[in-house]
Amino acid sequence: MSRIDRRIGLLLIASTTMTLACAHGPTVRVADPAEVRAAIEAANVQFASAMLRGDAPAVGSFFTEDGECIYAGMKEFIVGRPAVEAFFVSLFKRVSFVEATITTSAVHVEGDLAFETGTNKLTRKAGEAAPSTGTARYLVIWKRSADGRWRIRVDAVVPNPAG
Amino acid sequence: MSRIDRRIGLLLIASTTMTLACAHGPTVRVADPAEVRAAIEAANVQFASAMLRGDAPAVGSFFTEDGECIYAGMKEFIVGRPAVEAFFVSLFKRVSFVEATITTSAVHVEGDLAFETGTNKLTRKAGEAAPSTGTARYLVIWKRSADGRWRIRVDAVVPNPAG
Repeated sequence: MSRIDRRIGLLLIASTTMTLACAHGPTVRVADPAEVRAAIEAANVQFASAMLRGDAPAVGSFFTEDGECIYAGMKEFIVGRPAVEAFFVSLFKRVSFVEATITTSAVHVEGDLAFETGTNKLTRKAGEAAPSTGTARYLVIWKRSADGRWRIRVDAVVPNPAG
Repeated sequence: MSRIDRRIGLLLIASTTMTLACAHGPTVRVADPAEVRAAIEAANVQFASAMLRGDAPAVGSFFTEDGECIYAGMKEFIVGRPAVEAFFVSLFKRVSFVEATITTSAVHVEGDLAFETGTNKLTRKAGEAAPSTGTARYLVIWKRSADGRWRIRVDAVVPNPAG
């Protein structure tokens, strides 16, 4: 290989590296939409399972450190994983969930962000009262963490009218 | 300039072009977060103004063609700009808005997507009844259209409890 070709070769390598670094951040991570949707649906199954167990730390682990919830029945944004976990600790003291189904409608990926729309069905039980079932539609922002795992950045849940 | 330097120069130009095309899509669009937030806040002012005028086509124009709403008081997702516009046509037949304030809490940009959290305050009037005021928290997905304008891809609004 001539000296010229070596110099050009090095530039081509540099060019390729810049391109990959630019498209995908410091490390190359491929965002196959079907794979992202599968990862999110799998997380939702585990999230629902944690709800049924009343396991607040497990629920909290699905959120990013700066994760937020926009839930009905309150006026505040719940901001940060510790606050999210505290919310679920308090919730699970008052009610237990005997049914939790989360159904993805659609997932759209843009870089390290994705947004998901879907519906949920939750049946809760407080003390000796009869269980009550509610349904809702949701919009969730997912963010890919440095470890490659998709976590919830914002969880906004709009309750459906009863009946 | 030597022939070698010219070849290397061309490669460097190609490399830079690839990098820009890769980061920002077919055309180079700079996503300054402060500018995106300003554009979104300006759109919100105009959106609120269209609500006060009861101008459903104007409200609809803030949505992408595939825009969706997740609103309380119904069980359905409103999907597509025509459906969004039809919803507001129907809403404005029943109520008029005498106050509409949309307040951005935060905006995060990722490529051609951005998400915004915030609060709103709407005062509506139906016929001769006294006006009623409601507040809500929202999560909005914004998408940059080919014309450079940011439009609403998903509008999810979680009503606050009264009082």
